[in-house]
Amino acid sequence: MDKKEYIVKQLKRTYRKEYENYVITRIWHLINDLDIKIVTQQYIKRSVDINDSKKGFALADLYFPQFNLIVEVDEEHHLGTKLSDEVRDRDVINATNFEIERISTKGSIEDIHKKIDYIVKKIKKQKEKNNYNIWDYEKEFDITRHIERGYLDVEENPLFRKSVDAVNCFGFKDKALMKGGKNHPIKNNVLIWFPKLYEHNEWDNQITLDEEYIYEMNKNKLKNNEMIDRWINDSRDVRYCFGQYKDNLGRMLYHFKGEYTLDKKRTVQEKRAVWKRTSMRVETIKKDNN
Amino acid sequence: MDKKEYIVKQLKRTYRKEYENYVITRIWHLINDLDIKIVTQQYIKRSVDINDSKKGFALADLYFPQFNLIVEVDEEHHLGTKLSDEVRDRDVINATNFEIERISTKGSIEDIHKKIDYIVKKIKKQKEKNNYNIWDYEKEFDITRHIERGYLDVEENPLFRKSVDAVNCFGFKDKALMKGGKNHPIKNNVLIWFPKLYEHNEWDNQITLDEEYIYEMNKNKLKNNEMIDRWINDSRDVRYCFGQYKDNLGRMLYHFKGEYTLDKKRTVQEKRAVWKRTSMRVETIKKDNN
Repeated sequence: MDKKEYIVKQLKRTYRKEYENYVITRIWHLINDLDIKIVTQQYIKRSVDINDSKKGFALADLYFPQFNLIVEVDEEHHLGTKLSDEVRDRDVINATNFEIERISTKGSIEDIHKKIDYIVKKIKKQKEKNNYNIWDYEKEFDITRHIERGYLDVEENPLFRKSVDAVNCFGFKDKALMKGGKNHPIKNNVLIWFPKLYEHNEWDNQITLDEEYIYEMNKNKLKNNEMIDRWINDSRDVRYCFGQYKDNLGRMLYHFKGEYTLDKKRTVQEKRAVWKRTSMRVETIKKDNN
Repeated sequence: MDKKEYIVKQLKRTYRKEYENYVITRIWHLINDLDIKIVTQQYIKRSVDINDSKKGFALADLYFPQFNLIVEVDEEHHLGTKLSDEVRDRDVINATNFEIERISTKGSIEDIHKKIDYIVKKIKKQKEKNNYNIWDYEKEFDITRHIERGYLDVEENPLFRKSVDAVNCFGFKDKALMKGGKNHPIKNNVLIWFPKLYEHNEWDNQITLDEEYIYEMNKNKLKNNEMIDRWINDSRDVRYCFGQYKDNLGRMLYHFKGEYTLDKKRTVQEKRAVWKRTSMRVETIKKDNN
Protein backbone atom coordinates (compact mmCIF):
# COMPACT_ATOMS: atom_id res chain seq x y z
CA MET A 1 0.00 0.00 0.00
CA ASP A 2 1.44 3.38 -0.94
CA LYS A 3 0.51 6.86 0.31
CA LYS A 4 -2.10 7.29 -2.41
CA GLU A 5 -3.87 4.07 -1.53
CA TYR A 6 -3.59 4.80 2.17
CA ILE A 7 -5.28 8.19 1.88
CA VAL A 8 -8.00 6.99 -0.46
CA LYS A 9 -8.74 4.03 1.81
CA GLN A 10 -8.95 6.30 4.84
CA LEU A 11 -11.45 8.61 3.13
CA LYS A 12 -13.49 5.74 1.71
CA ARG A 13 -14.47 4.58 5.15
CA THR A 14 -16.24 7.82 6.02
CA TYR A 15 -19.77 6.72 5.30
CA ARG A 16 -21.24 5.98 8.72
CA LYS A 17 -22.92 9.36 9.04
CA GLU A 18 -24.93 11.35 6.52
CA TYR A 19 -22.40 14.20 6.19
CA GLU A 20 -19.23 12.42 7.28
CA ASN A 21 -17.76 11.86 3.82
CA TYR A 22 -18.54 15.43 2.78
CA VAL A 23 -16.98 17.02 5.86
CA ILE A 24 -13.91 14.83 6.04
CA THR A 25 -13.04 14.89 2.35
CA ARG A 26 -13.44 18.68 2.47
CA ILE A 27 -11.04 19.03 5.39
CA TRP A 28 -8.48 16.81 3.69
CA HIS A 29 -8.71 18.49 0.28
CA LEU A 30 -8.62 22.03 1.66
CA ILE A 31 -5.64 21.29 3.91
CA ASN A 32 -4.14 20.07 0.66
CA ASP A 33 -0.86 18.98 2.20
CA LEU A 34 0.70 15.55 1.77
CA ASP A 35 2.98 16.12 4.77
CA ILE A 36 -0.01 15.78 7.06
CA LYS A 37 -1.29 12.38 8.10
CA ILE A 38 -4.92 11.53 8.67
CA VAL A 39 -6.55 8.54 10.26
CA THR A 40 -10.30 7.99 10.04
CA GLN A 41 -12.32 5.98 12.54
CA GLN A 42 -9.54 5.67 15.06
CA TYR A 43 -10.42 4.00 18.37
CA ILE A 44 -9.59 6.17 21.34
CA LYS A 45 -10.06 5.97 25.07
CA ARG A 46 -13.43 7.02 26.34
CA SER A 47 -11.84 9.10 29.08
CA VAL A 48 -11.40 11.51 26.22
CA ASP A 49 -15.12 12.21 26.19
CA ILE A 50 -15.95 12.00 22.51
CA ASN A 51 -19.22 10.19 22.30
CA ASP A 52 -21.46 7.91 24.22
CA SER A 53 -19.79 4.56 23.73
CA LYS A 54 -20.71 2.41 26.65
CA LYS A 55 -17.66 0.26 26.43
CA GLY A 56 -14.96 2.71 27.40
CA PHE A 57 -13.91 3.32 23.81
CA ALA A 58 -14.98 5.72 21.14
CA LEU A 59 -14.42 5.97 17.44
CA ALA A 60 -12.97 9.32 16.33
CA ASP A 61 -14.17 10.38 12.87
CA LEU A 62 -10.91 12.06 11.91
CA TYR A 63 -7.62 12.00 13.77
CA PHE A 64 -4.50 14.03 13.09
CA PRO A 65 -1.75 12.12 14.94
CA GLN A 66 0.83 14.88 14.35
CA PHE A 67 -1.29 17.49 16.10
CA ASN A 68 -3.17 15.40 18.69
CA LEU A 69 -6.31 16.75 17.08
CA ILE A 70 -9.61 14.99 16.55
CA VAL A 71 -12.49 16.18 14.42
CA GLU A 72 -15.96 14.89 15.15
CA VAL A 73 -18.92 15.19 12.81
CA ASP A 74 -21.73 15.86 15.26
CA GLU A 75 -24.38 13.51 14.07
CA GLU A 76 -25.75 10.09 14.99
CA HIS A 77 -24.10 7.38 12.98
CA HIS A 78 -26.65 5.41 11.06
CA LEU A 79 -24.86 2.14 10.55
CA GLY A 80 -25.30 -0.28 13.38
CA THR A 81 -21.65 -1.11 13.96
CA LYS A 82 -21.35 -2.78 17.31
CA LEU A 83 -18.47 -0.81 18.71
CA SER A 84 -17.85 -3.40 21.43
CA ASP A 85 -17.54 -6.27 18.95
CA GLU A 86 -15.15 -4.57 16.62
CA VAL A 87 -12.96 -2.91 19.24
CA ARG A 88 -11.72 -6.25 20.61
CA ASP A 89 -8.70 -6.63 18.33
CA ARG A 90 -8.40 -3.02 17.20
CA ASP A 91 -5.66 -0.65 18.15
CA VAL A 92 -6.81 1.99 20.61
CA ILE A 93 -4.93 5.23 20.88
CA ASN A 94 -3.88 6.14 24.37
CA ALA A 95 -3.71 9.90 24.44
CA THR A 96 -4.02 12.29 27.29
CA ASN A 97 -4.06 15.64 25.61
CA PHE A 98 -6.32 15.47 22.58
CA GLU A 99 -7.98 18.54 21.28
CA ILE A 100 -11.43 17.96 19.83
CA GLU A 101 -13.15 20.05 17.17
CA ARG A 102 -16.80 19.33 16.53
CA ILE A 103 -18.63 20.13 13.33
CA SER A 104 -22.37 20.46 13.49
CA THR A 105 -24.11 19.45 10.29
CA LYS A 106 -27.42 21.01 11.21
CA GLY A 107 -26.81 24.47 9.78
CA SER A 108 -26.58 25.59 6.18
CA ILE A 109 -23.85 24.41 3.87
CA GLU A 110 -22.22 27.82 4.30
CA ASP A 111 -22.11 27.24 8.09
CA ILE A 112 -20.47 23.85 7.62
CA HIS A 113 -17.94 25.34 5.22
CA LYS A 114 -17.13 28.14 7.66
CA LYS A 115 -16.39 25.72 10.48
CA ILE A 116 -14.25 23.57 8.19
CA ASP A 117 -12.32 26.66 7.06
CA TYR A 118 -11.61 27.40 10.72
CA ILE A 119 -10.25 23.90 11.34
CA VAL A 120 -8.17 23.93 8.16
CA LYS A 121 -6.67 27.27 9.15
CA LYS A 122 -5.90 25.96 12.63
CA ILE A 123 -4.03 22.93 11.28
CA LYS A 124 -2.06 25.06 8.82
CA LYS A 125 -1.07 27.35 11.68
CA GLN A 126 0.06 24.42 13.80
CA LYS A 127 2.12 23.20 10.89
CA GLU A 128 3.74 26.63 10.55
CA LYS A 129 4.76 26.50 14.21
CA ASN A 130 6.91 23.62 13.03
CA ASN A 131 6.49 21.47 16.12
CA TYR A 132 5.53 18.30 14.28
CA ASN A 133 7.13 15.55 12.22
CA ILE A 134 6.46 15.58 8.50
CA TRP A 135 4.46 12.53 7.48
CA ASP A 136 7.00 10.31 5.76
CA TYR A 137 4.85 7.40 4.67
CA GLU A 138 7.80 5.19 3.68
CA LYS A 139 9.74 5.75 6.91
CA GLU A 140 6.80 5.93 9.26
CA PHE A 141 7.68 2.58 10.86
CA ASP A 142 11.44 2.95 10.57
CA ILE A 143 13.00 2.27 14.01
CA THR A 144 16.01 4.56 13.54
CA ARG A 145 14.40 7.43 15.40
CA HIS A 146 13.64 5.23 18.42
CA ILE A 147 17.28 4.19 18.56
CA GLU A 148 18.53 7.73 18.04
CA ARG A 149 16.37 9.07 20.86
CA GLY A 150 17.27 6.14 23.12
CA TYR A 151 13.79 5.35 24.44
CA LEU A 152 10.21 4.26 23.79
CA ASP A 153 7.51 6.16 25.66
CA VAL A 154 3.87 5.13 25.98
CA GLU A 155 2.76 8.75 25.74
CA GLU A 156 4.04 8.87 22.17
CA ASN A 157 2.14 5.76 21.07
CA PRO A 158 5.10 3.94 19.47
CA LEU A 159 3.76 1.62 16.77
CA PHE A 160 5.49 -1.17 14.87
CA ARG A 161 4.40 -3.08 11.81
CA LYS A 162 6.50 -6.14 12.66
CA SER A 163 7.54 -7.60 15.99
CA VAL A 164 11.09 -7.96 14.67
CA ASP A 165 11.33 -4.17 14.40
CA ALA A 166 10.46 -3.89 18.08
CA VAL A 167 13.11 -6.34 19.25
CA ASN A 168 15.69 -4.66 17.02
CA CYS A 169 15.14 -1.47 19.02
CA PHE A 170 16.92 -3.24 21.86
CA GLY A 171 20.01 -4.30 19.94
CA PHE A 172 19.06 -7.28 17.83
CA LYS A 173 19.64 -7.17 14.10
CA ASP A 174 17.16 -9.89 13.22
CA LYS A 175 15.43 -10.31 9.90
CA ALA A 176 12.32 -12.01 11.23
CA LEU A 177 10.72 -13.07 14.49
CA MET A 178 8.25 -15.92 14.57
CA LYS A 179 7.60 -16.12 18.29
CA GLY A 180 5.40 -14.22 20.73
CA GLY A 181 8.40 -12.97 22.67
CA LYS A 182 12.20 -12.75 22.86
CA ASN A 183 14.58 -12.34 25.77
CA HIS A 184 16.16 -8.91 26.11
CA PRO A 185 19.77 -9.09 24.83
CA ILE A 186 21.27 -7.36 27.89
CA LYS A 187 18.74 -7.29 30.71
CA ASN A 188 18.45 -10.80 32.09
CA ASN A 189 15.12 -10.20 33.80
CA VAL A 190 13.29 -8.80 30.74
CA LEU A 191 11.20 -10.51 28.09
CA ILE A 192 10.15 -8.48 25.05
CA TRP A 193 6.56 -9.61 24.70
CA PHE A 194 3.97 -9.43 21.88
CA PRO A 195 0.66 -10.62 23.32
CA LYS A 196 -2.83 -10.29 21.93
CA LEU A 197 -4.50 -8.38 24.74
CA TYR A 198 -7.97 -9.78 24.12
CA GLU A 199 -9.65 -13.17 24.07
CA HIS A 200 -8.11 -15.22 21.31
CA ASN A 201 -8.00 -19.01 20.86
CA GLU A 202 -7.03 -20.60 24.19
CA TRP A 203 -5.94 -17.29 25.69
CA ASP A 204 -8.01 -14.73 27.52
CA ASN A 205 -5.57 -11.89 28.09
CA GLN A 206 -6.90 -8.51 29.11
CA ILE A 207 -5.50 -5.04 29.62
CA THR A 208 -7.29 -2.65 31.96
CA LEU A 209 -8.74 0.54 30.52
CA ASP A 210 -6.05 2.62 32.24
CA GLU A 211 -3.44 0.09 30.99
CA GLU A 212 -1.95 -0.22 34.46
CA TYR A 213 -2.53 -4.00 34.53
CA ILE A 214 -2.36 -6.84 32.09
CA TYR A 215 -4.01 -10.15 33.01
CA GLU A 216 -2.60 -13.20 31.27
CA MET A 217 -4.74 -16.31 31.40
CA ASN A 218 -5.00 -19.60 29.58
CA LYS A 219 -8.56 -20.87 29.30
CA ASN A 220 -7.30 -24.43 29.79
CA LYS A 221 -7.10 -24.81 33.60
CA LEU A 222 -4.19 -27.26 33.55
CA LYS A 223 -2.10 -25.17 31.17
CA ASN A 224 -2.99 -22.06 33.16
CA ASN A 225 -1.69 -23.59 36.40
CA GLU A 226 1.53 -24.67 34.66
CA MET A 227 1.99 -21.15 33.32
CA ILE A 228 1.52 -19.58 36.76
CA ASP A 229 4.05 -21.98 38.31
CA ARG A 230 6.52 -21.18 35.57
CA TRP A 231 6.25 -17.41 35.86
CA ILE A 232 6.38 -17.43 39.69
CA ASN A 233 9.66 -19.32 39.60
CA ASP A 234 11.17 -17.45 36.65
CA SER A 235 13.73 -14.75 37.40
CA ARG A 236 12.66 -13.10 34.14
CA ASP A 237 9.70 -11.29 35.72
CA VAL A 238 9.71 -8.03 33.74
CA ARG A 239 8.14 -7.58 30.32
CA TYR A 240 8.32 -4.92 27.69
CA CYS A 241 4.86 -5.24 26.29
CA PHE A 242 3.88 -4.62 22.64
CA GLY A 243 0.16 -5.35 22.23
CA GLN A 244 -0.77 -7.02 18.96
CA TYR A 245 -3.69 -5.29 17.24
CA LYS A 246 -5.15 -4.44 13.88
CA ASP A 247 -5.09 -0.86 12.66
CA ASN A 248 -8.18 0.81 11.18
CA LEU A 249 -7.46 -0.70 7.76
CA GLY A 250 -7.13 -4.19 9.24
CA ARG A 251 -3.33 -4.38 9.08
CA MET A 252 -1.24 -5.95 11.88
CA LEU A 253 0.24 -3.51 14.36
CA TYR A 254 2.31 -3.73 17.57
CA HIS A 255 1.63 -0.97 20.07
CA PHE A 256 4.10 -0.34 22.89
CA LYS A 257 2.27 -0.41 26.22
CA GLY A 258 5.15 -0.05 28.72
CA GLU A 259 7.26 -2.10 31.13
CA TYR A 260 5.25 -4.52 33.26
CA THR A 261 6.41 -6.51 36.31
CA LEU A 262 4.80 -9.67 37.64
CA ASP A 263 2.72 -9.13 40.80
CA LYS A 264 3.46 -12.56 42.30
CA LYS A 265 1.08 -12.26 45.23
CA ARG A 266 -1.95 -11.35 43.12
CA THR A 267 -0.91 -13.91 40.49
CA VAL A 268 -1.14 -16.74 43.02
CA GLN A 269 -4.34 -15.39 44.58
CA GLU A 270 -6.19 -14.72 41.32
CA LYS A 271 -4.93 -17.73 39.36
CA ARG A 272 -3.88 -15.60 36.46
CA ALA A 273 -0.61 -13.82 35.71
CA VAL A 274 -1.03 -10.24 36.93
CA TRP A 275 1.40 -7.83 35.29
CA LYS A 276 1.58 -4.35 36.74
CA ARG A 277 2.97 -1.46 34.74
CA THR A 278 6.20 -0.28 36.38
CA SER A 279 7.34 2.18 33.71
CA MET A 280 5.87 4.14 30.82
CA ARG A 281 9.30 4.48 29.28
CA VAL A 282 12.04 1.97 28.48
CA GLU A 283 15.52 2.44 27.05
CA THR A 284 16.29 1.31 23.52
CA ILE A 285 19.83 0.37 22.57
CA LYS A 286 22.21 3.32 22.86
CA LYS A 287 23.35 4.55 19.50
CA ASP A 288 27.06 4.40 20.32
CA ASN A 289 26.64 0.70 21.17
CA ASN A 290 24.99 -0.03 17.87
CA MET B 1 -34.25 18.79 -0.49
CA ASP B 2 -32.12 21.92 -0.13
CA LYS B 3 -28.81 22.80 -1.75
CA LYS B 4 -26.84 21.20 1.07
CA GLU B 5 -28.65 17.90 0.75
CA TYR B 6 -28.45 18.04 -3.02
CA ILE B 7 -24.68 18.44 -3.06
CA VAL B 8 -24.05 15.84 -0.39
CA LYS B 9 -26.28 13.35 -2.18
CA GLN B 10 -24.49 13.97 -5.47
CA LEU B 11 -21.10 13.32 -3.91
CA LYS B 12 -22.28 10.28 -1.98
CA ARG B 13 -22.98 8.38 -5.16
CA THR B 14 -19.38 8.50 -6.32
CA TYR B 15 -18.33 5.07 -5.21
CA ARG B 16 -18.40 2.97 -8.39
CA LYS B 17 -14.69 3.30 -9.04
CA GLU B 18 -11.77 3.00 -6.66
CA TYR B 19 -10.72 6.68 -6.89
CA GLU B 20 -14.02 8.25 -7.96
CA ASN B 21 -15.03 9.65 -4.58
CA TYR B 22 -11.54 11.00 -3.96
CA VAL B 23 -11.25 12.75 -7.33
CA ILE B 24 -14.76 14.15 -7.44
CA THR B 25 -14.91 15.41 -3.86
CA ARG B 26 -11.54 17.04 -4.44
CA ILE B 27 -12.74 18.85 -7.56
CA TRP B 28 -15.86 20.06 -5.77
CA HIS B 29 -14.08 21.20 -2.59
CA LEU B 30 -11.27 22.96 -4.45
CA ILE B 31 -13.64 24.77 -6.78
CA ASN B 32 -15.25 25.82 -3.51
CA ASP B 33 -18.03 27.80 -5.12
CA LEU B 34 -21.72 27.36 -4.36
CA ASP B 35 -22.68 29.18 -7.57
CA ILE B 36 -21.52 26.19 -9.57
CA LYS B 37 -23.76 23.20 -10.06
CA ILE B 38 -22.55 19.62 -10.25
CA VAL B 39 -24.30 16.45 -11.29
CA THR B 40 -22.72 13.06 -10.73
CA GLN B 41 -23.48 9.97 -12.79
CA GLN B 42 -25.42 11.80 -15.44
CA TYR B 43 -26.59 9.72 -18.40
CA ILE B 44 -25.45 11.17 -21.69
CA LYS B 45 -25.65 10.15 -25.30
CA ARG B 46 -23.04 7.69 -26.44
CA SER B 47 -22.37 9.73 -29.54
CA VAL B 48 -20.37 11.78 -27.09
CA ASP B 49 -17.75 9.06 -26.85
CA ILE B 50 -17.23 8.80 -23.14
CA ASN B 51 -16.94 5.12 -22.38
CA ASP B 52 -17.73 1.74 -23.77
CA SER B 53 -21.41 1.44 -22.99
CA LYS B 54 -22.91 -0.89 -25.51
CA LYS B 55 -26.37 0.54 -25.26
CA GLY B 56 -25.87 3.97 -26.79
CA PHE B 57 -25.67 5.69 -23.43
CA ALA B 58 -22.88 6.45 -21.04
CA LEU B 59 -22.70 7.55 -17.47
CA ALA B 60 -20.62 10.67 -16.93
CA ASP B 61 -18.83 10.69 -13.57
CA LEU B 62 -19.11 14.44 -13.08
CA TYR B 63 -21.06 16.92 -15.15
CA PHE B 64 -21.00 20.71 -14.97
CA PRO B 65 -24.22 21.76 -16.74
CA GLN B 66 -23.25 25.44 -16.71
CA PHE B 67 -20.06 24.82 -18.64
CA ASN B 68 -20.98 21.79 -20.77
CA LEU B 69 -18.03 20.09 -19.14
CA ILE B 70 -17.70 16.46 -18.16
CA VAL B 71 -15.00 14.95 -16.00
CA GLU B 72 -14.25 11.27 -16.30
CA VAL B 73 -12.24 9.25 -13.81
CA ASP B 74 -10.34 6.93 -16.13
CA GLU B 75 -10.80 3.61 -14.44
CA GLU B 76 -12.97 0.53 -14.82
CA HIS B 77 -15.97 0.73 -12.58
CA HIS B 78 -16.07 -2.20 -10.24
CA LEU B 79 -19.74 -2.37 -9.43
CA GLY B 80 -21.71 -4.42 -11.87
CA THR B 81 -24.43 -1.89 -12.60
CA LYS B 82 -26.23 -2.93 -15.72
CA LEU B 83 -26.28 0.35 -17.55
CA SER B 84 -29.01 -0.85 -19.88
CA ASP B 85 -31.36 -1.79 -17.05
CA GLU B 86 -31.03 1.43 -15.16
CA VAL B 87 -31.04 3.79 -18.12
CA ARG B 88 -34.61 2.87 -19.09
CA ASP B 89 -36.38 5.50 -17.00
CA ARG B 90 -33.43 7.83 -16.43
CA ASP B 91 -33.02 11.26 -17.88
CA VAL B 92 -30.37 11.37 -20.58
CA ILE B 93 -28.71 14.63 -21.43
CA ASN B 94 -28.77 15.52 -25.06
CA ALA B 95 -25.70 17.62 -25.65
CA THR B 96 -23.78 18.24 -28.77
CA ASN B 97 -20.81 20.23 -27.57
CA PHE B 98 -19.51 18.67 -24.40
CA GLU B 99 -15.94 19.07 -23.42
CA ILE B 100 -14.46 16.07 -21.66
CA GLU B 101 -11.59 16.08 -19.19
CA ARG B 102 -10.17 12.72 -18.20
CA ILE B 103 -8.30 12.02 -15.00
CA SER B 104 -6.01 9.03 -14.93
CA THR B 105 -5.70 7.46 -11.50
CA LYS B 106 -2.67 5.37 -12.39
CA GLY B 107 0.00 7.90 -11.47
CA SER B 108 1.09 9.17 -8.08
CA ILE B 109 -1.22 11.13 -5.83
CA GLU B 110 0.74 14.24 -6.83
CA ASP B 111 -0.08 13.54 -10.51
CA ILE B 112 -3.78 13.18 -9.71
CA HIS B 113 -3.71 16.41 -7.72
CA LYS B 114 -1.98 18.25 -10.55
CA LYS B 115 -4.61 17.23 -13.09
CA ILE B 116 -7.39 18.19 -10.69
CA ASP B 117 -5.77 21.58 -10.12
CA TYR B 118 -5.79 22.11 -13.89
CA ILE B 119 -9.51 21.31 -14.13
CA VAL B 120 -10.37 23.49 -11.15
CA LYS B 121 -8.44 26.39 -12.68
CA LYS B 122 -10.21 25.86 -15.99
CA ILE B 123 -13.66 26.04 -14.40
CA LYS B 124 -12.75 29.12 -12.40
CA LYS B 125 -11.57 30.80 -15.59
CA GLN B 126 -14.79 29.92 -17.39
CA LYS B 127 -16.71 31.40 -14.50
CA GLU B 128 -14.67 34.60 -14.73
CA LYS B 129 -15.60 34.90 -18.40
CA ASN B 130 -19.08 35.35 -17.01
CA ASN B 131 -20.88 33.45 -19.74
CA TYR B 132 -22.89 31.21 -17.43
CA ASN B 133 -25.91 31.38 -15.17
CA ILE B 134 -25.28 31.32 -11.44
CA TRP B 135 -26.67 28.17 -9.88
CA ASP B 136 -29.77 29.35 -8.06
CA TYR B 137 -30.98 26.14 -6.43
CA GLU B 138 -34.34 27.57 -5.35
CA LYS B 139 -35.16 29.07 -8.75
CA GLU B 140 -33.60 26.38 -10.88
CA PHE B 141 -37.00 25.11 -12.04
CA ASP B 142 -38.71 28.47 -12.07
CA ILE B 143 -40.36 28.94 -15.47
CA THR B 144 -40.05 32.74 -15.54
CA ARG B 145 -36.89 32.67 -17.66
CA HIS B 146 -38.55 30.45 -20.29
CA ILE B 147 -41.42 32.94 -20.55
CA GLU B 148 -39.07 35.92 -20.59
CA ARG B 149 -37.00 34.43 -23.41
CA GLY B 150 -40.10 33.34 -25.30
CA TYR B 151 -38.99 29.84 -26.27
CA LEU B 152 -37.93 26.36 -25.22
CA ASP B 153 -35.03 24.85 -27.14
CA VAL B 154 -33.93 21.22 -27.04
CA GLU B 155 -30.28 22.26 -27.23
CA GLU B 156 -30.60 23.88 -23.81
CA ASN B 157 -32.08 20.78 -22.16
CA PRO B 158 -35.09 22.51 -20.55
CA LEU B 159 -36.10 20.52 -17.47
CA PHE B 160 -39.24 20.73 -15.35
CA ARG B 161 -40.03 19.21 -11.99
CA LYS B 162 -43.77 19.22 -12.55
CA SER B 163 -45.81 18.86 -15.72
CA VAL B 164 -47.93 21.82 -14.60
CA ASP B 165 -44.87 24.07 -14.87
CA ALA B 166 -44.43 22.99 -18.49
CA VAL B 167 -48.03 23.76 -19.48
CA ASN B 168 -47.83 27.10 -17.69
CA CYS B 169 -45.01 28.06 -20.06
CA PHE B 170 -47.68 28.25 -22.76
CA GLY B 171 -50.10 30.52 -20.93
CA PHE B 172 -51.92 28.42 -18.37
CA LYS B 173 -51.88 29.48 -14.75
CA ASP B 174 -52.73 26.06 -13.33
CA LYS B 175 -51.87 24.83 -9.87
CA ALA B 176 -51.72 21.16 -10.74
CA LEU B 177 -51.98 18.82 -13.70
CA MET B 178 -53.03 15.22 -13.20
CA LYS B 179 -53.11 14.06 -16.81
CA GLY B 180 -50.51 12.92 -19.32
CA GLY B 181 -51.27 15.81 -21.64
CA LYS B 182 -53.12 19.09 -22.13
CA ASN B 183 -54.31 20.92 -25.21
CA HIS B 184 -52.32 24.01 -26.13
CA PRO B 185 -54.34 27.10 -25.11
CA ILE B 186 -53.94 28.87 -28.47
CA LYS B 187 -52.69 26.41 -31.09
CA ASN B 188 -55.60 24.11 -31.98
CA ASN B 189 -53.39 21.42 -33.49
CA VAL B 190 -51.02 21.06 -30.53
CA LEU B 191 -51.13 18.75 -27.53
CA ILE B 192 -48.64 19.37 -24.72
CA TRP B 193 -47.60 15.80 -23.97
CA PHE B 194 -45.85 14.11 -21.02
CA PRO B 195 -45.15 10.53 -22.06
CA LYS B 196 -42.87 7.97 -20.46
CA LEU B 197 -40.58 7.21 -23.38
CA TYR B 198 -39.83 3.64 -22.32
CA GLU B 199 -41.73 0.44 -21.69
CA HIS B 200 -44.07 0.99 -18.80
CA ASN B 201 -47.25 -0.90 -17.83
CA GLU B 202 -49.36 -1.36 -20.99
CA TRP B 203 -47.29 1.11 -22.98
CA ASP B 204 -44.18 0.50 -24.99
CA ASN B 205 -43.17 3.98 -26.12
CA GLN B 206 -39.70 4.52 -27.51
CA ILE B 207 -37.62 7.48 -28.60
CA THR B 208 -34.82 6.93 -31.09
CA LEU B 209 -31.27 7.62 -30.00
CA ASP B 210 -31.11 10.74 -32.18
CA GLU B 211 -34.54 11.74 -30.78
CA GLU B 212 -35.87 12.37 -34.29
CA TYR B 213 -38.71 9.86 -33.80
CA ILE B 214 -41.01 8.81 -31.01
CA TYR B 215 -42.93 5.55 -31.34
CA GLU B 216 -46.11 5.34 -29.30
CA MET B 217 -47.55 1.88 -28.85
CA ASN B 218 -50.03 0.15 -26.58
CA LYS B 219 -49.12 -3.48 -25.87
CA ASN B 220 -52.82 -4.39 -25.98
CA LYS B 221 -53.52 -4.92 -29.68
CA LEU B 222 -57.15 -3.80 -29.51
CA LYS B 223 -56.36 -0.62 -27.60
CA ASN B 224 -53.44 0.03 -29.92
CA ASN B 225 -55.65 -0.13 -33.00
CA GLU B 226 -58.17 2.21 -31.35
CA MET B 227 -55.39 4.66 -30.56
CA ILE B 228 -54.07 4.61 -34.13
CA ASP B 229 -57.58 5.25 -35.52
CA ARG B 230 -58.05 8.11 -33.10
CA TRP B 231 -54.76 9.87 -33.89
CA ILE B 232 -55.14 9.42 -37.67
CA ASN B 233 -58.49 11.20 -37.56
CA ASP B 234 -57.53 13.84 -35.01
CA SER B 235 -56.72 17.32 -36.34
CA ARG B 236 -54.51 17.75 -33.26
CA ASP B 237 -51.54 16.04 -34.86
CA VAL B 238 -48.68 18.04 -33.35
CA ARG B 239 -47.19 17.42 -29.91
CA TYR B 240 -44.87 19.37 -27.69
CA CYS B 241 -43.15 16.48 -26.01
CA PHE B 242 -41.84 16.50 -22.44
CA GLY B 243 -40.41 13.08 -21.66
CA GLN B 244 -41.04 11.84 -18.14
CA TYR B 245 -37.89 10.54 -16.46
CA LYS B 246 -36.14 10.23 -13.17
CA ASP B 247 -33.10 12.34 -12.46
CA ASN B 248 -29.92 10.86 -11.01
CA LEU B 249 -31.32 11.11 -7.47
CA GLY B 250 -34.51 9.31 -8.49
CA ARG B 251 -36.73 12.42 -8.56
CA MET B 252 -39.37 12.95 -11.26
CA LEU B 253 -38.32 15.16 -14.14
CA TYR B 254 -39.87 16.34 -17.44
CA HIS B 255 -37.37 16.90 -20.21
CA PHE B 256 -38.40 18.94 -23.27
CA LYS B 257 -37.70 16.90 -26.41
CA GLY B 258 -39.16 19.17 -29.14
CA GLU B 259 -42.18 19.52 -31.39
CA TYR B 260 -43.28 16.25 -33.03
CA THR B 261 -45.78 15.75 -35.84
CA LEU B 262 -47.65 12.53 -36.60
CA ASP B 263 -46.32 10.66 -39.65
CA LYS B 264 -49.68 9.25 -40.72
CA LYS B 265 -48.36 7.03 -43.48
CA ARG B 266 -45.81 5.26 -41.30
CA THR B 267 -48.30 5.12 -38.43
CA VAL B 268 -50.73 3.09 -40.52
CA GLN B 269 -47.98 0.92 -42.01
CA GLU B 270 -46.16 0.18 -38.74
CA LYS B 271 -49.22 -0.12 -36.50
CA ARG B 272 -47.78 2.31 -33.98
CA ALA B 273 -48.02 6.08 -33.74
CA VAL B 274 -44.90 7.47 -35.41
CA TRP B 275 -44.08 11.00 -34.29
CA LYS B 276 -41.39 12.81 -36.23
CA ARG B 277 -39.59 15.78 -34.74
CA THR B 278 -40.49 18.87 -36.74
CA SER B 279 -38.86 21.51 -34.54
CA MET B 280 -36.18 21.69 -31.82
CA ARG B 281 -37.66 24.97 -30.60
CA VAL B 282 -41.17 26.03 -29.66
CA GLU B 283 -42.55 29.38 -28.56
CA THR B 284 -43.64 29.90 -24.97
CA ILE B 285 -46.27 32.52 -24.15
CA LYS B 286 -45.03 36.01 -24.96
CA LYS B 287 -44.34 38.02 -21.87
CA ASP B 288 -46.58 40.93 -22.88
CA ASN B 289 -49.49 38.48 -23.17
CA ASN B 290 -48.95 37.12 -19.71
